[in-house]
Amino acid sequence: MHNFIRLTLISTALLIAASAVASDSLPSWNDSGAKQAFLAFVEQVTDPSQSTFVPESDRLAVFDNDGTLWPECPMPFELAFTMDEAKRLADAQPELARDPVIQAAINRDFETLFAGEKHDGFLKLMALTHAGISADEFKRRVNAWWETAKHPEYKERFRELAYQPMREVIAYLRSHGFKIAIVSGGGMDFMRVFAGPLYGVEPEWVLGSSADVTLEMEDGKPVVKKQSSGLSINDHEGKTKRIYNHLGRRPIAAFGNSDGDRSMMEYTTIDNPYPSFAMYIHHTDPDREYAYDSRPPFSGKLTTGLEAAKQHGWSVVDMKRDWNKVFSKPITK
Amino acid sequence: MHNFIRLTLISTALLIAASAVASDSLPSWNDSGAKQAFLAFVEQVTDPSQSTFVPESDRLAVFDNDGTLWPECPMPFELAFTMDEAKRLADAQPELARDPVIQAAINRDFETLFAGEKHDGFLKLMALTHAGISADEFKRRVNAWWETAKHPEYKERFRELAYQPMREVIAYLRSHGFKIAIVSGGGMDFMRVFAGPLYGVEPEWVLGSSADVTLEMEDGKPVVKKQSSGLSINDHEGKTKRIYNHLGRRPIAAFGNSDGDRSMMEYTTIDNPYPSFAMYIHHTDPDREYAYDSRPPFSGKLTTGLEAAKQHGWSVVDMKRDWNKVFSKPITK
Repeated sequence: MHNFIRLTLISTALLIAASAVASDSLPSWNDSGAKQAFLAFVEQVTDPSQSTFVPESDRLAVFDNDGTLWPECPMPFELAFTMDEAKRLADAQPELARDPVIQAAINRDFETLFAGEKHDGFLKLMALTHAGISADEFKRRVNAWWETAKHPEYKERFRELAYQPMREVIAYLRSHGFKIAIVSGGGMDFMRVFAGPLYGVEPEWVLGSSADVTLEMEDGKPVVKKQSSGLSINDHEGKTKRIYNHLGRRPIAAFGNSDGDRSMMEYTTIDNPYPSFAMYIHHTDPDREYAYDSRPPFSGKLTTGLEAAKQHGWSVVDMKRDWNKVFSKPITK
Repeated sequence: MHNFIRLTLISTALLIAASAVASDSLPSWNDSGAKQAFLAFVEQVTDPSQSTFVPESDRLAVFDNDGTLWPECPMPFELAFTMDEAKRLADAQPELARDPVIQAAINRDFETLFAGEKHDGFLKLMALTHAGISADEFKRRVNAWWETAKHPEYKERFRELAYQPMREVIAYLRSHGFKIAIVSGGGMDFMRVFAGPLYGVEPEWVLGSSADVTLEMEDGKPVVKKQSSGLSINDHEGKTKRIYNHLGRRPIAAFGNSDGDRSMMEYTTIDNPYPSFAMYIHHTDPDREYAYDSRPPFSGKLTTGLEAAKQHGWSVVDMKRDWNKVFSKPITK
């Protein structure tokens, strides 16, 4: 055989083999445009022979959490935790049970909780369940809840509800030298409890909403205490600013599911000296998951984000079409 | 030879060999108590056969920067940058040259700059040199300065003045699975420019003083801009709170040189479920470096810290006695 033909055949075989390996790394994805765009991006930035190559230290990917890595319906999981905590606290402290905010939480009376422009009731509930205790105690409470609490519609533990296709994306990026950060509107301390076991993301890489902490010496021992003051919601432009402050570099890949993720996607893709990639998860599957662009009052809205996706060429995942599997095991509502 | 004796001899030989390897990793350290305490700690937490073993993911070491990883006399390097920037700005913008604060900086008139309880002059100088510009532009300016600027007394570029013994400590910890974070009173954005080249510490792991940033769209491009509002000084208890917020876990080793580092050392060592270690660098070498516990107005004070070191059994490095070398090459004042 002519050497050139032999080489071409070998190269082609290698390319097919490489592509099969890549496909096998994302088994929960159908072979759609979204998957192909993602694989092409990763190849582009990791192939040292291409001018689009990005050094490993600059490969940062950021992920929203609620609605991007796991469901956010019928309410974000942290809100479910908050409701369960209200009940637990009321059982333990009868004087608290009489508090109208705790009562509203127990009765799932969201109208009362979210009344008024500033949602005073909800903020008070957050203070009662997320502040006034040590950071260690809060972690213990989240851990205890996390062990057993179940999703109200899937009737399965929340901890089983991470999207399998997104876990595959994280693993694929990580195996290609990417740093992975979670940049979510959820509470930083809440997410740090399970980001390790669920996604292999260590606490340093979890950016979320937060409030003040104080440092107190109790019996000569330093104790970090959670406060309700200084609340900083990590959403919209706040996500971009927090990425800058916390991580100190620009991501080259961003994944989200709502308008609140648009700013960090713009920061990732517009005027970035490196090749970049952004992907929206679009909730289009009413049977296996949920179908919505907005489900007041709790879900993220996806309206201007879809427009921006068209404008900037971001990928949009059609969950129903693009994912052959939603969770790691068969879980149905 | 009896098998038991043979085994003992082999073990002893191995121990001596291991200790020689360890010593070789810290060649700029004399064989003093401080070095021995440090090596013993690392062995204790990395030997899986011991009950004191700490899993790799929980091995976090935090380092102050000014006075701990490089000198802080006659003034912190960032203050030298600020003075040089004032001169550069005055040359470029004659209208700025008339500003009394810029004039004070050019004339090294620290009395004017630091007058008043709130140091208004200095704050204004910081705003002029550190804010109102994009984060990218600030980075460019620091980088340009960093390439050539020289220390006023060593007459050597600042970039050559990292303490060689501390670089060895960082390398030794890193080779033993430790994560390394810099937790300094210096500006976060300033330090992130050189923490990589000097210490191999990526920007995510550099915690420092910071102020607000804004996100602005300029010609459709997202630009992060540095502001002078919202200044947060990373010192004393602020260091501990920032470690909690940014890193989400407790260090098991802390290195500092002033009372401002005491809080993070307490957080590291008091009531930590893991074995822990803290080390003060004591400036005792007037010839090769500086000798001081306090050099107003710029250096850190080391007074209550030395008391705390005694109380808690922290190591104290006598720079003159314990380091056989201060910098990587011979540099003298």
